[in-house]
Amino acid sequence: MVTRRNLYLDIQPKAEALHRFFEQLEKESGEADGDRRGDRDADSGIRSWNRSERIPTAESFRRVTSEAVCARYSSPSYNSCAMDGIAVVSSRTREASEIHPVHLKPGTDYIEVDTGDPIREPFDAVIMAEDLIEDGDGYRIIAPTHPFAHVRAVGEDIVTQEMVLPSRHRITAIDVAVLLSVGVQEVAVFKRPSVAILPTGDEMVEAEEMADEAAAESGPGEGKIIETNSRMFENLVTEQDGIPVRYPIVKDDQALLQETILDAVRRCDVVLVNAGSSAGREDYTAQAVAALGRVVVHGVAVKPGKPVILGIVQGKPVIGLPGYPVASYLTFMEFVVPVMNRYTHLRQKPEKTVQAVLTKTVMSSLKYEEYVRVKLGRVDGRWSAAPLSRGAGAAMSLVQADGFCVIPQNVEGLPAHEPVTVRLMREEDQMENTLVSIGSHDLILDVLNDLMLEQGEAAWLSSTHVGSMSGLLALKKREAHLAPAHLLDERTGTYNVEIIRELFGVSGGVVLIKGVGRRQGLIVKKGNPLGIRTIEDLAGGIRYINRQRGAGTRVLFDAKRKQLGIPAEAITGYSHEAATHMAVAVAVEQDNADAGMGVYSCAKALGLDFIDIACEEYDFVTYEDFLQLPAMQIFLRVLKSDAFRRKLEELGGYTYENLGEIRRIKETEMG
Amino acid sequence: MVTRRNLYLDIQPKAEALHRFFEQLEKESGEADGDRRGDRDADSGIRSWNRSERIPTAESFRRVTSEAVCARYSSPSYNSCAMDGIAVVSSRTREASEIHPVHLKPGTDYIEVDTGDPIREPFDAVIMAEDLIEDGDGYRIIAPTHPFAHVRAVGEDIVTQEMVLPSRHRITAIDVAVLLSVGVQEVAVFKRPSVAILPTGDEMVEAEEMADEAAAESGPGEGKIIETNSRMFENLVTEQDGIPVRYPIVKDDQALLQETILDAVRRCDVVLVNAGSSAGREDYTAQAVAALGRVVVHGVAVKPGKPVILGIVQGKPVIGLPGYPVASYLTFMEFVVPVMNRYTHLRQKPEKTVQAVLTKTVMSSLKYEEYVRVKLGRVDGRWSAAPLSRGAGAAMSLVQADGFCVIPQNVEGLPAHEPVTVRLMREEDQMENTLVSIGSHDLILDVLNDLMLEQGEAAWLSSTHVGSMSGLLALKKREAHLAPAHLLDERTGTYNVEIIRELFGVSGGVVLIKGVGRRQGLIVKKGNPLGIRTIEDLAGGIRYINRQRGAGTRVLFDAKRKQLGIPAEAITGYSHEAATHMAVAVAVEQDNADAGMGVYSCAKALGLDFIDIACEEYDFVTYEDFLQLPAMQIFLRVLKSDAFRRKLEELGGYTYENLGEIRRIKETEMG
Repeated sequence: MVTRRNLYLDIQPKAEALHRFFEQLEKESGEADGDRRGDRDADSGIRSWNRSERIPTAESFRRVTSEAVCARYSSPSYNSCAMDGIAVVSSRTREASEIHPVHLKPGTDYIEVDTGDPIREPFDAVIMAEDLIEDGDGYRIIAPTHPFAHVRAVGEDIVTQEMVLPSRHRITAIDVAVLLSVGVQEVAVFKRPSVAILPTGDEMVEAEEMADEAAAESGPGEGKIIETNSRMFENLVTEQDGIPVRYPIVKDDQALLQETILDAVRRCDVVLVNAGSSAGREDYTAQAVAALGRVVVHGVAVKPGKPVILGIVQGKPVIGLPGYPVASYLTFMEFVVPVMNRYTHLRQKPEKTVQAVLTKTVMSSLKYEEYVRVKLGRVDGRWSAAPLSRGAGAAMSLVQADGFCVIPQNVEGLPAHEPVTVRLMREEDQMENTLVSIGSHDLILDVLNDLMLEQGEAAWLSSTHVGSMSGLLALKKREAHLAPAHLLDERTGTYNVEIIRELFGVSGGVVLIKGVGRRQGLIVKKGNPLGIRTIEDLAGGIRYINRQRGAGTRVLFDAKRKQLGIPAEAITGYSHEAATHMAVAVAVEQDNADAGMGVYSCAKALGLDFIDIACEEYDFVTYEDFLQLPAMQIFLRVLKSDAFRRKLEELGGYTYENLGEIRRIKETEMG
Repeated sequence: MVTRRNLYLDIQPKAEALHRFFEQLEKESGEADGDRRGDRDADSGIRSWNRSERIPTAESFRRVTSEAVCARYSSPSYNSCAMDGIAVVSSRTREASEIHPVHLKPGTDYIEVDTGDPIREPFDAVIMAEDLIEDGDGYRIIAPTHPFAHVRAVGEDIVTQEMVLPSRHRITAIDVAVLLSVGVQEVAVFKRPSVAILPTGDEMVEAEEMADEAAAESGPGEGKIIETNSRMFENLVTEQDGIPVRYPIVKDDQALLQETILDAVRRCDVVLVNAGSSAGREDYTAQAVAALGRVVVHGVAVKPGKPVILGIVQGKPVIGLPGYPVASYLTFMEFVVPVMNRYTHLRQKPEKTVQAVLTKTVMSSLKYEEYVRVKLGRVDGRWSAAPLSRGAGAAMSLVQADGFCVIPQNVEGLPAHEPVTVRLMREEDQMENTLVSIGSHDLILDVLNDLMLEQGEAAWLSSTHVGSMSGLLALKKREAHLAPAHLLDERTGTYNVEIIRELFGVSGGVVLIKGVGRRQGLIVKKGNPLGIRTIEDLAGGIRYINRQRGAGTRVLFDAKRKQLGIPAEAITGYSHEAATHMAVAVAVEQDNADAGMGVYSCAKALGLDFIDIACEEYDFVTYEDFLQLPAMQIFLRVLKSDAFRRKLEELGGYTYENLGEIRRIKETEMG
């Protein structure tokens, strides 16, 4: 039996899709407002995104004015004393000089006043306390004063009726205080949009259900997914000045979904349905929206994010967002934010961008505009952008991303080392203080970054894991500050030094920062059920999981394998690759493989067995001139710290005799 | 009787004051923690600003991690389908090609799967729906697939134990979702500081007391001030990630103040006392803090803000902030924010600055570091900074300010037309789209800005009021886009054209945008109790209020006065100056003066009488090349709009025959 699918999404360019949607929305929201006119007098004829409300000024912080706000009375509201001192009649001080001081008597000639006190007739000026000389029961003064001296006249700051704030102004902390001081107790502001968030899917489990220890321990179970997109949407809606209204998970049942959408349309201004927007058998969102109103757009030429639905029900926007985390984030930013901006009347801030060079070529389909997440680094004053995993499901790439670049539709890809525009997701200044590490992966990289931050240093270590060899090549192009490497030279049996000498020469200004010794070996299941003892045992049909080309661990494995005369073809799964030690360990733990080469700490972390093969040297390669960078200084300090040694003991499988030592590369050096 | 004052504030440079304060705070907070160790076990030995708490991940948005956060399980947590399609056994597809398609039977050869479905043995790969050809009860395929194709392997995104977030990381909307998806139900974050805000002062009235219509109408009354600083602090504390705890107004009574400070120190992490920090007779803050603990600093060499108090009570910071709005804002930013940052562990973002030229010289005392608020404009790609009112009480200058520049201690001032660094208080892009108007004041400038914004245009009109002549000089230096002017040429009796020809010449590229005709006259009290009829009547001891030198209104007044042969000295108050029409009207309304020259709309706004003297031409002068600027186009559109005409009718006293017409300056033109 073949099931019907909604295969034929109507793919449109993004700008066109948004334009069509807004055009239709303007039309239908007007009609819907007309329909409602009978029972909603106050709002009649006003599109829902232009509705305003009067709220107490004291609660108006960060709201946006819907009309100009004028002062109700002046500030100051009476002639007031501007300094601590005495109030005097200025005409009686006219003769005062150093030679002929004037004596002032309390009560008749002056009264004591503090800042803010009213100045009443006959007094018309203030003399500062600092300018008074005590003299009997009064004061002596040696200079005249003039009318209104140190007096703040009524309205000196703000005059009644004056426009204090214009329309469409976002109210600041200062504004609130100033408005209250001139008698403005209420302001008219735009209503904030309420945004309904409808998570859907039979496979979804509420995060709360995982709260107790047993559930948390066991995980959501096969085929079940913890519903988390709605939590992201809640916070993004808040960040965009909206009011999130999250619904419980809706099962995959079209009638139920329609009922929920109708309820959401009644209660809220904007409705988000997540997911059920693609072409799966149980993806009812498009049908539900079509049954209740109109699907204006289904399918946009963006990747990730293609299956987005832009619909209208009862004049209100109903947006279907795809389920993969990366796709749902990007489509929220590209489609929901512009819709919300209509309601909030916030200015669309120009996106912050930098010009960077890509560290590797990225290919893309001509059919889509594609968003590539990147990690940014600033090396030698130039930005370099390392592309991250591109899958729509790669949520971690969003956590790690510093920004993204967009490959336009009709472009096949972006070549390495060419300039690209990167839209920033983080503050630029954070990235300015980031040490860029590209190379081999080890758990200690995260630990080092964390220790740098834990000590309150404003310096980060950003790691991209491409393997030792690719890291050194990035360093050679000065796209990184640091290349962590553990490359065995088969001829000499030494680590790192030979390949550096070969790549950079002895006068290339490159130095080695000694890192850790680490135990590499075969990671196998707990209890080693297949009885694997050596690399030779792998040739017997055991499912191996390998590391990617250029990874030091693969170089080591190949060296050992060749020593034993085992051809690559003899090893099942030799072409099954993982990008990190931990990914190898997880594959073994989850029975996607029987064995893989990796470091001891990863086997230990997952409680797997470990067959020791070699102790290798995991070092950091850098340029001598980078050693003076503030972030590098912090890195070196942390590398040599006791806190880091304690962490290494905890992780297990590391030695650290020469940690942080700096070695120059000499002609004759043999490691 | 002479009252004792705290005259002798101990003035210190700002950096030194903060350094001393933090040094002492580190010492005393440690001691205080020691003292409390008995009853507060969990916190023992940890300074209050390093305390953390475990909170549900779902509520952790924007909080700052106090330790690294690691994944509890992998994502995906099972081998899962990456696309909608069918799950197959890859080895059985090996022979498929266009020439030899393979037929797949449901159940045995494949099962239908949707994105996210688990892939279980014997199935090990997924073929996308798009690549399937329906064929009887199953599918035909024309290409082979391989193991793990379109399968997301366990841990592909995140592996268990992996560090997802480092320490001291501000949690984003994305982070919350990702943490929940890998089983992290709770995170450790730094506690947010609670900040007690103690408004003080007998003269203070709660804003709430002004809420009813009668109170709002009458104003706070002479000698009374609406307490609003605490409202600003509340919002600033919120903005800085703290929890504001506002106390009711404390009367000027040292015992009561001490009691309240003690209560605040018990309940909160940081205590702000406002004001009572200067040398007034009722300023008890310093004594109160000294009695309860220690005053580390009293008096800092900053202006405004000098009387700030940095104290410690029971190991907690107690900060006395001055009462004037501008001083209280600046001292909050300079002293309270650094203290709060210790608790929030937020990175101190580098301040955003621009290099600008000052439009006029600003003098400053050698004794203080002085903060000068400025309005910024970007003209011809250069930033110009127009200094605003400098009084500590000039709250409106804070509302209007785009930024401020700092005149260092030991520097006498900043010269006009020299570059200065301006710290930004607004987004740079807003100011990029701002039309800079420097010149004569009229109520219509605020109205025009508001209409530009009301129509949803991202363009602003920023006005600095320096009088017609100074505005034209600023335009000549290209420090402004527009100069509103109404300068009468006494010889020809025409407005603006003659002076433009004289200043810019006919080939200077300058054009006149016709503005409004407006009625100028004498503003006098309601009912005109002194029976003033003409300018001649002013010579009889009547208290006049004048406009500043260079103001078109003053030029007009002087022309009329000279025609009548009245010397300036004959007019009482000729040297009493106000900067705007509205300030003149308020002075008359408040009986600070009997009469002043101004426009009809201002008299009307305050219900005052008006004696018509002249109808003058209030135009906008600009360069021809500025006419093409997007913001100028919007300005011209608004100027000619019906909405603006309606506003003019409402204000009264304006004519508008030629509104928005553009006139070139010709050799022979006579206005």
